[in-house]
Amino acid sequence: MSRVTVLGTGLVGGSVGLAARARGHHVTGFDLDPARAARAQALGAVDAVAADLAGAVAGSDLVVVAVPVGRAAEVATAAFDAGAPVVTDVGSVKAGVVEAVEATRPGAADRFVGGHPMAGSEQDGLDGADADMFTGATWVLTPTPTTDPQVFEVVRDFAVGLGAEVVAVSPRHHDALVAVVSHVPQLAATTLMDVAARRGEEHATLLRLAAGGFRDMTRIAASHPAIWPDICVANRAAIVAALDDYLDALGAVRALVADADRTGLLDLLERGRRARRNLPVGTPTDAVLVELRIPVPDRPGVLAEVTTAAGVLGVNIVDLEIAHSGEGAGGVLVLVVPEASVAGFEVALDELGYHHARRRLT
Amino acid sequence: MSRVTVLGTGLVGGSVGLAARARGHHVTGFDLDPARAARAQALGAVDAVAADLAGAVAGSDLVVVAVPVGRAAEVATAAFDAGAPVVTDVGSVKAGVVEAVEATRPGAADRFVGGHPMAGSEQDGLDGADADMFTGATWVLTPTPTTDPQVFEVVRDFAVGLGAEVVAVSPRHHDALVAVVSHVPQLAATTLMDVAARRGEEHATLLRLAAGGFRDMTRIAASHPAIWPDICVANRAAIVAALDDYLDALGAVRALVADADRTGLLDLLERGRRARRNLPVGTPTDAVLVELRIPVPDRPGVLAEVTTAAGVLGVNIVDLEIAHSGEGAGGVLVLVVPEASVAGFEVALDELGYHHARRRLT
Repeated sequence: MSRVTVLGTGLVGGSVGLAARARGHHVTGFDLDPARAARAQALGAVDAVAADLAGAVAGSDLVVVAVPVGRAAEVATAAFDAGAPVVTDVGSVKAGVVEAVEATRPGAADRFVGGHPMAGSEQDGLDGADADMFTGATWVLTPTPTTDPQVFEVVRDFAVGLGAEVVAVSPRHHDALVAVVSHVPQLAATTLMDVAARRGEEHATLLRLAAGGFRDMTRIAASHPAIWPDICVANRAAIVAALDDYLDALGAVRALVADADRTGLLDLLERGRRARRNLPVGTPTDAVLVELRIPVPDRPGVLAEVTTAAGVLGVNIVDLEIAHSGEGAGGVLVLVVPEASVAGFEVALDELGYHHARRRLT
Repeated sequence: MSRVTVLGTGLVGGSVGLAARARGHHVTGFDLDPARAARAQALGAVDAVAADLAGAVAGSDLVVVAVPVGRAAEVATAAFDAGAPVVTDVGSVKAGVVEAVEATRPGAADRFVGGHPMAGSEQDGLDGADADMFTGATWVLTPTPTTDPQVFEVVRDFAVGLGAEVVAVSPRHHDALVAVVSHVPQLAATTLMDVAARRGEEHATLLRLAAGGFRDMTRIAASHPAIWPDICVANRAAIVAALDDYLDALGAVRALVADADRTGLLDLLERGRRARRNLPVGTPTDAVLVELRIPVPDRPGVLAEVTTAAGVLGVNIVDLEIAHSGEGAGGVLVLVVPEASVAGFEVALDELGYHHARRRLT
C-alpha cells in the first residue's frame, strides 16, 4: 500500500489508477487536460487530482508516467525535478525515454525503470479504462546497468500487484521485439487494407470477397490512428529494421510463387503453421515455482544482467527480492520463476558466472 | 430438385452434397479415394457413390467438380466426355480452369461455368463439411462470352438454392481479386509469423509479447498448408502482381517511417481505418429488391457482359431469368438485384447500351 502518482489519466493511466486503488494504493492524478483528470476522478481512477505536476508528485512513493510516447521523457524528468523517488512509464517504445532520462538527469537515472504493460483496449481514452486490464498481462520492465535494484523491486512489485507477469528486457531489445510483434503488424495490416481498398474502388466485389482470413488480418487497421505516428517516430530504427526483414522475406516468397516452387511454398507454409500453433497463450497460473538464490557482487548492472538474461529466455519473474548479506559488500538476489522455464535460465546464470541455490516452492 | 453429381467428396464437395440433399436434390458422389466417398455417404453427403466418374455423371443434370485446383480442368473435361450437360467447379482460382476447358473442349465450353463459393472451414476434409456452409456466403460465378445463358441460370439457381449470394465476375477479374483478399493475405500472414518465429529463437520473450493484434494477423498462418502450393501456382501471375503492389506499398510505408513523416503516417492510418470500418459484413437479407427487365440481342457474350458489369459494382444477382421473347431473335434478361445497389448498375447498363425497365418488388 503506497502513494502512487499517475501523470496522464487516459486509457492506460486511468486503468493503472483503477487497478492500483482496487489494491489499496492511494492514487493522485494529474493531466494537462483538467477535464480529463476530473473525469478520471469521477470514474474512481484517482483518489485526488492535483493542480499541477509538482503537487501530484509531492509525497509520492512511485510516479507512473502515462503520457504519449513522444512526451514521456520530459514528463519523467519533470517528475524527478519535483522530487519523485521512483519513476516508471508505460509507453510502447523504451530506448528513447530511458536514454533521454540518463542523458538529462544522470543523477536520477538509477531511479527510473522503463515499463510497458502489454495490455490495452479497442477503446480509446478513459472509457476503456479497466481495473483488470493488467491481470495476466505481460508487463515488460527495461532495467539498465544503472538501475538501482531496490527501485526495480518497487516497480516490479507494483506491476505484479496489479496482476501482471513481469519480464525484464533491455530497452533496445524491447524496442526490437515490439517492432516485430506490434509495430510492423500494425503497418502491415493497415497497408494491406489500403491496397485492397484501392483495388476495391475499381471492382466493388473485391471487398465482398473479403472472408474471415482477410478480416482477421486487417482487424487492427481499425485501431485509433492518433498514437501511431509518435510510436513510429520513436521506434523508427527498429521498425525500419523489422520492416526490412519482412520485405526481404516477402520478396523471397514472391520468388517462390514466380518460380512455381511448390516445395519451397509448402516448407514455408508448414513452418508458419507450426510457429503459429506454438504461439504461447500465456503462462499457466498454476505453474510450479522455483526460488533461485543468487549471491551477487555489489556492483552496478548485476540486476539488469540477471533479469534481462531471464527475459531473453522468456522467463517471467514471479517474485524478486534483494537480500543484503551481513558480511562483505555483496548481497543475494532472490528470484522466483516458473519451474518449467528454469533449466535454460540456470545454464545462462552459470555462463554469466553466477552460482546459485535452487529450491522448489510447493 | 435435380440430379447433382459431386466429383471429389472432401470438405467443399461434401458440404455441397449435404446442402444439396437438404434441399431435395439427389446427389451422386465419386472420389478417387473410395474410402473417402464411402465416408461421404455415411455422413449423408451423397445419396449414392458411383464406381467411376462416368457412372457418377450418367443421368446427371449438374456436375460439381470439387477437386484440388490443379486437377479441376481435367476432371471437368472428363465429365463432359462422360456426357455431362452442365459442369461447374468450386476451386479458388478460375482463369486456368475456364481457359483449359475452352481450349480442350471448345464444343462444351459454353456449358461450363466456373464457380467459387467463398466459404470454408478451419477444418480440413469431410469432418468440417456442413450443410449450411453456403448460407449467406458469396458464391462467385465466372461467365465468359461463350457461356450459354440457360446454363448460367442452372448453376446460379443451384448456388442460390444452397443459400448463397451470387456475384458474377470474369475469370481474370476473380483471380486478381482473390489474390488481393485471400492469397496475398495468406502469404503475408505466414511470412510475418515466420519472421517473428525466427526472431523468437534469439529472444523467447518476443512471442510472449505477441498480443491480440499479432494473433489476429497471423491466425490464418495456422491453416492447412496442403492446398496452398496448388493455388499459388495456378494463380501465379495475379499473386505476383498483388504481392508487388503490397511490396511497393510497404516500401512507401518504410520511407514514411524512415523519414519520420508523421503526417504521411497519420494519413495512411486514417485511410486504413476508414476502409476497414467500411468493410461490408454481408448484404442485409431484408433488402428491398428491384427487378430489371433488359431486352437483349441473341448474340454470345451478352449474359457475361451484363452480369459481370453487376459484379464490378459488387451487385449480387438475387435472381436471374432468361425470357425468350416470341418475336425476333432476342430475349429478355430478367435480373433481380438489391435496390440499394441498383443506381450505379443502371448507369452501367446505359453505358453498355442496354435499355431496361425497372420494377420495385415488395
